[in-house]
Amino acid sequence: MKRVFNFGAGPAMLPTSVMEKARDEFLNFKDLGAGLIEISHRSKEFDAVINRTDELFRELSGLPDNFKILYVHGGAQMQFSAIPMNLIGRNPAHKAAYLETGNFASLARKEASRYGNITVAATSEATNFDRIPDFNPASLDADTSYVHLTSNNTIFGTRWNQFPDTGDIPLVADMTSELLSRQLDYNKFGAIFAGLQKNLGPAGMALVLMREDLLGNALPYTPSLLDYSVYEKSHSLQNTNNTFAIYMMCLVLEWLKEQGGVAAIEAINEKKAALLYEAIDSTDFYIGSAHKADRSVMNVTFNIADPELSAAFLSEADKLGLYALKGHRLVGGIRASIYNAMPIEGCAALVEFMKDFERRNG
Amino acid sequence: MKRVFNFGAGPAMLPTSVMEKARDEFLNFKDLGAGLIEISHRSKEFDAVINRTDELFRELSGLPDNFKILYVHGGAQMQFSAIPMNLIGRNPAHKAAYLETGNFASLARKEASRYGNITVAATSEATNFDRIPDFNPASLDADTSYVHLTSNNTIFGTRWNQFPDTGDIPLVADMTSELLSRQLDYNKFGAIFAGLQKNLGPAGMALVLMREDLLGNALPYTPSLLDYSVYEKSHSLQNTNNTFAIYMMCLVLEWLKEQGGVAAIEAINEKKAALLYEAIDSTDFYIGSAHKADRSVMNVTFNIADPELSAAFLSEADKLGLYALKGHRLVGGIRASIYNAMPIEGCAALVEFMKDFERRNG
Repeated sequence: MKRVFNFGAGPAMLPTSVMEKARDEFLNFKDLGAGLIEISHRSKEFDAVINRTDELFRELSGLPDNFKILYVHGGAQMQFSAIPMNLIGRNPAHKAAYLETGNFASLARKEASRYGNITVAATSEATNFDRIPDFNPASLDADTSYVHLTSNNTIFGTRWNQFPDTGDIPLVADMTSELLSRQLDYNKFGAIFAGLQKNLGPAGMALVLMREDLLGNALPYTPSLLDYSVYEKSHSLQNTNNTFAIYMMCLVLEWLKEQGGVAAIEAINEKKAALLYEAIDSTDFYIGSAHKADRSVMNVTFNIADPELSAAFLSEADKLGLYALKGHRLVGGIRASIYNAMPIEGCAALVEFMKDFERRNG
Repeated sequence: MKRVFNFGAGPAMLPTSVMEKARDEFLNFKDLGAGLIEISHRSKEFDAVINRTDELFRELSGLPDNFKILYVHGGAQMQFSAIPMNLIGRNPAHKAAYLETGNFASLARKEASRYGNITVAATSEATNFDRIPDFNPASLDADTSYVHLTSNNTIFGTRWNQFPDTGDIPLVADMTSELLSRQLDYNKFGAIFAGLQKNLGPAGMALVLMREDLLGNALPYTPSLLDYSVYEKSHSLQNTNNTFAIYMMCLVLEWLKEQGGVAAIEAINEKKAALLYEAIDSTDFYIGSAHKADRSVMNVTFNIADPELSAAFLSEADKLGLYALKGHRLVGGIRASIYNAMPIEGCAALVEFMKDFERRNG
């Protein structure tokens, strides 16, 4: 069967073996005579799926026991509202600090400013978010309810290599584009959230990891299904949830375990990114978009020195089965999103094409 | 392949031909070399899917042009918050009236009471929601922002056969369990919403049909992704949406069109329900749960006169491939959910089993 190397930023490619497994049992899950997508969220079969997903996530991530795993409606952007609604009430001043490193960080900050007093504690906007800005946690007021950052910036191709130590102020991270792609010390965070559609599964839901002592602070008008404590009390089954997305996530986690877990996939991810960055840095024909020290391992952004060649590059790549390489309109150029499911062969094929394209057009 | 007759209340069975089509192109949508679930919500391929879904829905429903079709995160229960947040501000008194006909109507009323002054304008709670209560629209204050009802009550097996005329006060209907199962005069309504997981597709999203003049009244603290005008302005693409659910809905609508559309499926649905209600009414062995005048065509609820026999009934039915017939814990007994995708053969098989079970135990 024809399968392209899909470099799209998300919804992103899923491992082929995961897709095959889901296809093979699509109409008949565990010999039930019905698909998982067709049965109750309160069935014993789905209960086993969500329990297994919890178990695998804890095993793979090493998540500390004092964090709750929540499966929340609406993707990461819904959490841009839910995070302030759940956390900004921790202190009467209703203050939060945002670290602005790109489009999604800005959107999160703008949404939060509807619910409290928001400070931009650091930003790299002046250089079009080509780097991670300096940030001094000591500059924060002690009554700041939380600090928000975006750990990997999908559009600009940067990431936080080291996370700031915010002491007693909970650090909240949008990890949509890199959760489970790298090892983490979860104890540095108060909450982490991620839309599923990059490294975890299909679109339409978010995973929220919440330190349990931070639950119970929701603002009075928080919609019930944005109140994280409602999810915690019901094991994310207050209402019908996105059963198929959780099932797909379960299959993705089983696959990740087969790959050797997060440490193993992190090593592969670093090799994949190194292949591409070496190809970019070895010539003046291509120009990397992000500062080297802050380069993302998930989204490799670059331009062709002669931008007139971009359209031909993208069109030829597409014909070779190197799909969805077009950069986001905010930066232009080329973006290779190489999440966990992208095999190293995909990156090698892209490098080969880059060198060939340069030879013919350089 | 083994396929049961799945009588579950939802997430519910999908037409087998729809499931087969989704399976067959799961890894390779339109020869793209990637599945629909793996590609961008901003791709031209997904754009064609969502446009076709709009087009089919309008064609099948006859929805008037002044209604907007919105694909909203979070299922029907998320709309229990979003409806008051979007509509209760229409009048300064922030009043709304709720017609209480069951569990979901009550949940909707309780959630709304967090955002305004809510009146229960009619209720059948005193008889455990076995009927649709009398309701006089003339009893409403003129500055009521909207009236909310649940058109079909999944748990109790009742439905509104005739909808009240609320004049200038917009009527809002939760039609989760019957949208597109019956013909409707949409002009009677201000807004209609439905979780997809009964007649429209898989779980994890809601369809909202909104009269356009009612948009733009959201309360100031409404989360952006619960503000219907945000969906209207972005064609439901403000952020990554549940692409796979919309795709599955598109396939379900194509199937419904092949069946002859809503009038044709309504006639079949009435035959299916009549088969079951005749079997219940023709004996004292079974007892229908709902008042005859208000019986649902989608959810047929009944008890065995000797409730001790229920466990054996359910266990034997399950062995025959009559799946998920257990009634909801609030009413007990037996519930056959017979949405659009349930073939008449499923109802006939259930009737045959009911008669056989009665013969052996009566």
